[in-house]
Amino acid sequence: MMRWWGWGEDGHDEPLPPGAQALLRAEVGELGPRRDHVALDDVALPEARLPAELRERLVAIVGAEHLRDDRITRVRHAAGRGYADLVRLRAGTLAGAPDAVAFPASAEQVAALLRACSEARVAVVPFGGGTSVVGGVEPLRGDCAAVLTLSLARLDKLVAVDAASLTATFEAGMLGPALEDALREHGLTLGHFPQSFEHSTVGGWVATRSAGQASTGYGRIDALVVGLRAVTPSGEIATRTLPASAAGPSLRELLVGSEGALGVIVEVTLRVRPRPAVRRYEAFSLPSFEAGADAFRALVQAGAAPDVSRLSDEQETRVSLALAGGDTLQAKALRGYLSARGHARPCLSICGWEGASEHDVRARRTAAVRVLRAHGAVALGTGIGGAWEHGRYHAPYLRDELLAHGVLVETLETAATWSGLGALYDAVGAAIDGALRERGTAPVVWCHVSHLYRAGASLYFTFAARQQEGAELEQWHAAKAAANDAIVAHGGTLSHHHAIGRDHAAWLPGEVGPLGVALLRAAKATLDPVGVMNPGKLLDPAPLPGAPAA
Amino acid sequence: MMRWWGWGEDGHDEPLPPGAQALLRAEVGELGPRRDHVALDDVALPEARLPAELRERLVAIVGAEHLRDDRITRVRHAAGRGYADLVRLRAGTLAGAPDAVAFPASAEQVAALLRACSEARVAVVPFGGGTSVVGGVEPLRGDCAAVLTLSLARLDKLVAVDAASLTATFEAGMLGPALEDALREHGLTLGHFPQSFEHSTVGGWVATRSAGQASTGYGRIDALVVGLRAVTPSGEIATRTLPASAAGPSLRELLVGSEGALGVIVEVTLRVRPRPAVRRYEAFSLPSFEAGADAFRALVQAGAAPDVSRLSDEQETRVSLALAGGDTLQAKALRGYLSARGHARPCLSICGWEGASEHDVRARRTAAVRVLRAHGAVALGTGIGGAWEHGRYHAPYLRDELLAHGVLVETLETAATWSGLGALYDAVGAAIDGALRERGTAPVVWCHVSHLYRAGASLYFTFAARQQEGAELEQWHAAKAAANDAIVAHGGTLSHHHAIGRDHAAWLPGEVGPLGVALLRAAKATLDPVGVMNPGKLLDPAPLPGAPAA
Repeated sequence: MMRWWGWGEDGHDEPLPPGAQALLRAEVGELGPRRDHVALDDVALPEARLPAELRERLVAIVGAEHLRDDRITRVRHAAGRGYADLVRLRAGTLAGAPDAVAFPASAEQVAALLRACSEARVAVVPFGGGTSVVGGVEPLRGDCAAVLTLSLARLDKLVAVDAASLTATFEAGMLGPALEDALREHGLTLGHFPQSFEHSTVGGWVATRSAGQASTGYGRIDALVVGLRAVTPSGEIATRTLPASAAGPSLRELLVGSEGALGVIVEVTLRVRPRPAVRRYEAFSLPSFEAGADAFRALVQAGAAPDVSRLSDEQETRVSLALAGGDTLQAKALRGYLSARGHARPCLSICGWEGASEHDVRARRTAAVRVLRAHGAVALGTGIGGAWEHGRYHAPYLRDELLAHGVLVETLETAATWSGLGALYDAVGAAIDGALRERGTAPVVWCHVSHLYRAGASLYFTFAARQQEGAELEQWHAAKAAANDAIVAHGGTLSHHHAIGRDHAAWLPGEVGPLGVALLRAAKATLDPVGVMNPGKLLDPAPLPGAPAA
Repeated sequence: MMRWWGWGEDGHDEPLPPGAQALLRAEVGELGPRRDHVALDDVALPEARLPAELRERLVAIVGAEHLRDDRITRVRHAAGRGYADLVRLRAGTLAGAPDAVAFPASAEQVAALLRACSEARVAVVPFGGGTSVVGGVEPLRGDCAAVLTLSLARLDKLVAVDAASLTATFEAGMLGPALEDALREHGLTLGHFPQSFEHSTVGGWVATRSAGQASTGYGRIDALVVGLRAVTPSGEIATRTLPASAAGPSLRELLVGSEGALGVIVEVTLRVRPRPAVRRYEAFSLPSFEAGADAFRALVQAGAAPDVSRLSDEQETRVSLALAGGDTLQAKALRGYLSARGHARPCLSICGWEGASEHDVRARRTAAVRVLRAHGAVALGTGIGGAWEHGRYHAPYLRDELLAHGVLVETLETAATWSGLGALYDAVGAAIDGALRERGTAPVVWCHVSHLYRAGASLYFTFAARQQEGAELEQWHAAKAAANDAIVAHGGTLSHHHAIGRDHAAWLPGEVGPLGVALLRAAKATLDPVGVMNPGKLLDPAPLPGAPAA
């Protein structure tokens, strides 16, 4: 399990590189002294309030050793890993904690837990890897008497592989590395590598419509689901494993992305692929973000997109080069070289190809490079590409380090059609900048495109600013609310790969309209009539951390 | 509009080729004498019962000339184009007819019509091209006082083209040819060519999750929808035009395939593609259906499937060759050639490639032919392929001719994973054969695979038998019910491209389970609280034509 106060495990932290420190000093001001998180014993933990009768019933279902309410277990399940979560974890000022955590071992146990909690009117928060960055696992109780977090950790097995149909069935709680290890034995891969890969679960991916770093090639998780099984307070619902169907509305697509608010996804059947024999990651420089986006659009619409297709804007490129050691001679030489090639403000692109053979990868790379060059790309070779691949899961550790230095750092993402992408990019960037500047903490905002579709692409923003001491959450809320407003106003989606959770729920009506919300409420009333499933998320907005009093 | 008693327009009918007559005689027995349909004036038409007050209100909405209840208009909207529809149309024994047909010109008029009908408790049957073969446009009134058919015929415009995002927005009532004509001016194509193409509408395709003959290449219609707008009795619901989203459950996927039971889809935004410059259609023979299916699986899993990928079983191949003139010297020579190559019972495959250039098509063809040859395929050249392409929309005319000769001919389709396909093929074929044999009308049953996915494929069955005179509908019902039972029992889907409609509605709980049906009911109660939208379809089973009395 992850360390209770931050991302991942110990031993992955590194001090901020001097180049990054310099850049931050220049952009957001002097960094504070390094401050550690509080000790576990100093975390303020509300008293556990699970009704005794229910507790007995739950113990009868999962066994005493699998119903936990000790301090470390409750703290570990008290928050996701968004910025607001980390601020509160580090300060030991949790908004709440589950009254207990249950670890069922089967779908039947999940069903019994949901029945018991429905009858006792106790909220249930499904919990996979706990990596949500949108408040998706926050132990809110809504109108309920108490809150139980339901961990899927023991539902962690590969159920079946259908080699002929290239599908595999997984229990929901399998973590990314275990899933890929199990598939490797069959010569297969799912190809789903979100930044959280090492600590997130396949059930969580499906429940949040996750996208991974190679999803341009392998497909988003929702495009990989061919069947699933969910347990709800009203009973079990399973969709047939089918390649396609015209049998009415898609119930599968109502459960994919249901974020624990309709029930618990306990099993999923996903498309898998033969494991690639050859992988090549390579960097390019594009003369501008706009030129790069045009190149990416041409690539994907020609069917020539690399499996990993990433394009940083000018600012993210500066940050990346700074993190990679921006003041070294080598970095200076690179900047000089690119400047001489007309890339005064270069935009870094990472392209990755995975394939069955050198021939296959070479052919696809050749087709892609032709398009990139036509848009002014300069090839930078496999060094930077390999370094990106090597560090692909590292950014959240860096976030912990920045928080220790009093830096607000947050990410958010959206998507739009190609024709709407430029305006959305401008609007969201300006909204974040404006909201933080107004508070006297002008930020640095950067962005990349990481998922390509024929009709459009995703935008992934990161921003950093000096923390507003004593008002860290209010500061965060101002930026987040401004970004959400801009996304809704400019035709984007509130999330392309992190889900709605708590942090976008109040804006969902802006995206799907009142009748859309009514439809979701009707689905919830059918599957969760008492309303115990994951309160305060998705279609049931709860106040955000740092929100001004109403 | 189509001729009232059968498919399409006059002037496309041809007498049954002698080879086909001989094959039918051998397989199902002597054909009856040719019998024509009754005259329009002899069609028994129930009295129009639209309440006078509602009639006035509807006239105020659409104008008197766009609210019709004359004989020909009511007959034209009294049935789809399934076998049971045609039997009743030809005999002049309609089960019912709409009390009136409204032709709104805008989404606002649609909204006003739905409000008026909800208030008056009058059923509304949305009607695109009227080509449903599953009873989807049957003017059933359910619990309502009367039934209004709502034709989308005047919502027939291309609304917008987004050339950068390769999307186009259409009003729902655009017919296939008009849609492709409009896109041609922009150098684009949708690439959606169901057999009903000439007479079906884009809104109908989306409402029924249609698949077209080239959908292996271009994608099913549900894979092409990026946004839509529906009008329901509870108001309008629109989904944002987005390439992808993680913003909760997909409401778009709840409206796609909603078959008029939740509301009226009035506008859709679809992915389009540059129009192909080069098209090549070619035939192959495979040594068996099983070998062919293996070849197709290998093709699609290698990313090498042709855009059109069709594989007939042994029986369909015999029928196709008979229709093409099975007793000619040329046909005999072909059979001899294939027999000498070890294809004693050949299976015909049609492969079609569409691309930007000769080079592109050649490269894809080369990759595919390599796989096909490895599975024992013999190339038959472009003659048969071209003939298939030329006649791709002709089969429904042939059905009219067979009906005139007293032949029951019906189609149905399903899909499954590759590992489940063989058992499903056997079970459905045996079910149809058994049900008709039991009635003393042993059928000939044939099948093809026409849509390939990495995880599985579709199966499209056709069967023919002597009509059981005086019990034509009972005979049909027996075969249809047996096939539906077999599909549900063997893990298939009730439809891969014709939808649920009236004919599969009673079996839907078998596919989606009781909680699945409850979810659909909850959606319907939200969008259509009075329950006026398309009664007797999708989630509201009505008795099928020919069903035994309960």
